[in-house]
Amino acid sequence: MAQGAQELVFAPLGGVGEIGMNLAIYGLGDERRREWLAVDCGVSFAAEEHMPGVDLILPDIRFLEGERKNLAGIVLTHAHEDHFGALLELWPKLKVPVYATPFSAALLRAKCAGEPGAPDIPVTILDRGGRFQAGLFDVELVTMSHSIPEANALIIRTPRGTVLHTGDWKIDPEPILKDPTDEKKLRALGQEGCLALIGDSTNAVRDGVSPSESDIARVLADLIKTAPRRVAVTTFASNVARLRAVAEAARAADREVVVIGRAMERIVQIARETGHFDGVQPFRSTDAYGYLPPDKVVALCTGSQGEPRAALARIAEDQHPDVTLSRGDRVIYSARTIPGNEKAVGRIINALIEQGVEVITDRTHMVHVSGHPRRGELEALIGWVRPQILVPVHGEALHLHEHANLARNLGIKQVLQCRNGDLLRLAPNAGLIDEVPSGRVYKDGQLLVDAQQRTVADRRRLSFAGAISVALALTEKGEMVGDPEVDLIGIPERDRTGALLEDVVYDAVLETFDSLPRGRRRDPDSVAEGIRRGVRSAVAGRWGKKPMCHVHVLAV
Amino acid sequence: MAQGAQELVFAPLGGVGEIGMNLAIYGLGDERRREWLAVDCGVSFAAEEHMPGVDLILPDIRFLEGERKNLAGIVLTHAHEDHFGALLELWPKLKVPVYATPFSAALLRAKCAGEPGAPDIPVTILDRGGRFQAGLFDVELVTMSHSIPEANALIIRTPRGTVLHTGDWKIDPEPILKDPTDEKKLRALGQEGCLALIGDSTNAVRDGVSPSESDIARVLADLIKTAPRRVAVTTFASNVARLRAVAEAARAADREVVVIGRAMERIVQIARETGHFDGVQPFRSTDAYGYLPPDKVVALCTGSQGEPRAALARIAEDQHPDVTLSRGDRVIYSARTIPGNEKAVGRIINALIEQGVEVITDRTHMVHVSGHPRRGELEALIGWVRPQILVPVHGEALHLHEHANLARNLGIKQVLQCRNGDLLRLAPNAGLIDEVPSGRVYKDGQLLVDAQQRTVADRRRLSFAGAISVALALTEKGEMVGDPEVDLIGIPERDRTGALLEDVVYDAVLETFDSLPRGRRRDPDSVAEGIRRGVRSAVAGRWGKKPMCHVHVLAV
Repeated sequence: MAQGAQELVFAPLGGVGEIGMNLAIYGLGDERRREWLAVDCGVSFAAEEHMPGVDLILPDIRFLEGERKNLAGIVLTHAHEDHFGALLELWPKLKVPVYATPFSAALLRAKCAGEPGAPDIPVTILDRGGRFQAGLFDVELVTMSHSIPEANALIIRTPRGTVLHTGDWKIDPEPILKDPTDEKKLRALGQEGCLALIGDSTNAVRDGVSPSESDIARVLADLIKTAPRRVAVTTFASNVARLRAVAEAARAADREVVVIGRAMERIVQIARETGHFDGVQPFRSTDAYGYLPPDKVVALCTGSQGEPRAALARIAEDQHPDVTLSRGDRVIYSARTIPGNEKAVGRIINALIEQGVEVITDRTHMVHVSGHPRRGELEALIGWVRPQILVPVHGEALHLHEHANLARNLGIKQVLQCRNGDLLRLAPNAGLIDEVPSGRVYKDGQLLVDAQQRTVADRRRLSFAGAISVALALTEKGEMVGDPEVDLIGIPERDRTGALLEDVVYDAVLETFDSLPRGRRRDPDSVAEGIRRGVRSAVAGRWGKKPMCHVHVLAV
Repeated sequence: MAQGAQELVFAPLGGVGEIGMNLAIYGLGDERRREWLAVDCGVSFAAEEHMPGVDLILPDIRFLEGERKNLAGIVLTHAHEDHFGALLELWPKLKVPVYATPFSAALLRAKCAGEPGAPDIPVTILDRGGRFQAGLFDVELVTMSHSIPEANALIIRTPRGTVLHTGDWKIDPEPILKDPTDEKKLRALGQEGCLALIGDSTNAVRDGVSPSESDIARVLADLIKTAPRRVAVTTFASNVARLRAVAEAARAADREVVVIGRAMERIVQIARETGHFDGVQPFRSTDAYGYLPPDKVVALCTGSQGEPRAALARIAEDQHPDVTLSRGDRVIYSARTIPGNEKAVGRIINALIEQGVEVITDRTHMVHVSGHPRRGELEALIGWVRPQILVPVHGEALHLHEHANLARNLGIKQVLQCRNGDLLRLAPNAGLIDEVPSGRVYKDGQLLVDAQQRTVADRRRLSFAGAISVALALTEKGEMVGDPEVDLIGIPERDRTGALLEDVVYDAVLETFDSLPRGRRRDPDSVAEGIRRGVRSAVAGRWGKKPMCHVHVLAV
């Protein structure tokens, strides 16, 4: 392709106007042929959207499947689920190179090892701050602070200009993991010239700048030091800086750390392997918990989001094989509650309180801080990089809108707001030029189900009004043989008068059949449809709701 | 009954360890016979607990039904749904006198009028601050500030001592409705002697004292005055003080108020009838909205909790017949988002933002305050009343626990913590003496369903894994006649290999039947059970989940 004809384009396939499911693509070429680079491949959690039976929500990658041969690879900015959690399911459809730094690569490997039948995804391991070529794209990593080790922004240099894709980030002047946001490299990018900044909008509604992980560490140290008996801390397992802060607080209080929960054990091991735990004392295994004196132990637990099978839920219900808490112990929730999980978290907190355990949350103590930039940090980054174009991503409409306004107020000439699937030309002549297929796919059991399919919508209908099935046998002449059968699921047993709804349905089947003209009785489809209507209307009369109803008419 | 033998007892039948469903009973007598007085009769909202298809959660009143002849009446402290919302459903089972002040009575009447088939509940209307006799109970109202007009605490005087039942309350030094908490009467009660305080724990984890409704009014006035175009305000309709604040702010900004939404219209009318809107300018009807200039209108809308059929949701989706909002308009959420509603509220906010509407919430502006007492207010009340006994009610475990601790730290001798159904003797010799039946009932369509029934649990199972029904016809000899029929609902269409799951089920039916020993084929129940297992296991192999499955075997 002639370099003069090249366009640089960008499209989000997820993460815009929603939380999670981050997947962005950059393209070089023209409308006849483009080479693509994908950044991240994340999931959303279905619990947050009340989608019963759906485990995960993934981006629809039909478009990338079609362009597979022109896809240079997938670069992971970091290893949070909303940025890399869809790889196990989706990589087998693409089979392109995956690029990641050591911690993210190790987490991906552990994730694959933990799921039976997971693909063996080959990962090209990148140096932190390194630079590499992926097809036509010259990519350089910029170390950023975030709530997981090894978060990276990407400088993507192309013949049509240079893009900064921030990934998730914040500025932390006192990071626990010695990985401050690389201000120097970002300022140098500003000097070099930055065409477009594609940036995290999560906290664009929050004024000021984020507190440091070290501020949290000091609060934790105090809470652990002053605890009269056992302390349990729960946090997102991947927040290694927080785990390290707990370890250091425990050591200062002359306590041992016991790690409870598989996800936590996995991260601790990876943190040690990748050097993020250098200098941290060895932890004790779960079975040590039982014989350590109450004032000599800190338990690091999974389950900060109320997950029913995680460590803290089982401890709160007194069902953990090795770990118990009792009156006078202290539990610290060093995490925010993700919207949708409030009730589950509340149940656990209440169960702990009822046992006399003291529960400390971020409502009363500064025991958690977000990993995303507030307005002051967004302003700082824009000041360093001074991009010509800013595209807000990673957020709901409110966050994108506030990020856009902030950029405009700082004098950014072109602020492009977009939706998932919008294809934006960044150069030359930036603007919306096309749409590419995008959407959502549900992980439902072991299967992937297109969000357009009726599966989940039907289940939602079932959850509101239940289901009835009816079976009857019909001769060729349209005579019913034997008795019909009815089955009701998820429907109240009796109506207000005390009549069984099963009897109401049974009677409706017989009455509807009898009321059908003789000619119609010979047509099984017509009989089925007539009875279906008769049953639903009879039930609605007693209950006020119309359940789903299927009528089997067997020709005998 | 001899007065010397009398005991004064108390039992919560709802509202303890949970939000909502407030219903408390007081009893005088002994274990052979007691006379009862009930306070409040509220609901919980099922949306907050993710119970699909359940509209409301009501207290189980089996106990009161049995004691109906000994129940002197139900006194309503105020007309919030969690205190009076179950009356329509439950009063017909009791048919006892109901006592309420004018505003609460008017709201109850309007509620009955709005529901077809609702009972005609006779209400004895009480004077604010009045005193009356209900059976053996001498009850006096104490005016309290709250987020609805005419909230009352009850002083219940008995031969065994005097109880203060607070209901919901706070201290508001500058109330909009001129109904300050009656400190004088409460102090007098302290002088007279108070046996037990049964008190609201909702905000017992919050330090300090609540801001005043007047503080909120000033912020609203400023936001309405400075708005460049249209303003819409959404709040809980029953918060008449807030509506009044909006009306006054509109008048100061030379704007007209238009009321949007049936619940809001109903409250406005009742507020005028009961004098809480004295001096407020007339509002305009919905159809005036279209021709008022943008800078001359304030719309008061229902829908602060994201209710999909309320005014604000329909406006955000551009589906309201009379009302539209557009770029530059301002929407003020003068309400907190009840946990469980975050996603629904978020969707509406995002839809508004996408239309260029500015959305203001309590995250960034002080546009809402709770109606419940913070720790400083709880301390003040305890100081005025100085009860011998304190029973924390109205809250989850965390709140009850904090309220109890606070009371102990203030020197209250006996703090009794209890659960729903606990029967506490308040005098003589306070303590837990028994349990009475309690629990929850679901309003499901038009029917009441006991929480112990399988109905809702089955629907939850359906929502996770769908349902299969199978029908086949069998001769007496155990031969299948014709083809079996299968129906799948809420199940993915195809497995990973592309095979239709409907075919998988069909094949499993035939294969399982063929594999049954001839003798078993003559037994329809055994055939049904065999096929059920075969189908579920075949589906689990392809999908990883086991749907509910019913097999109809018709004998022909």
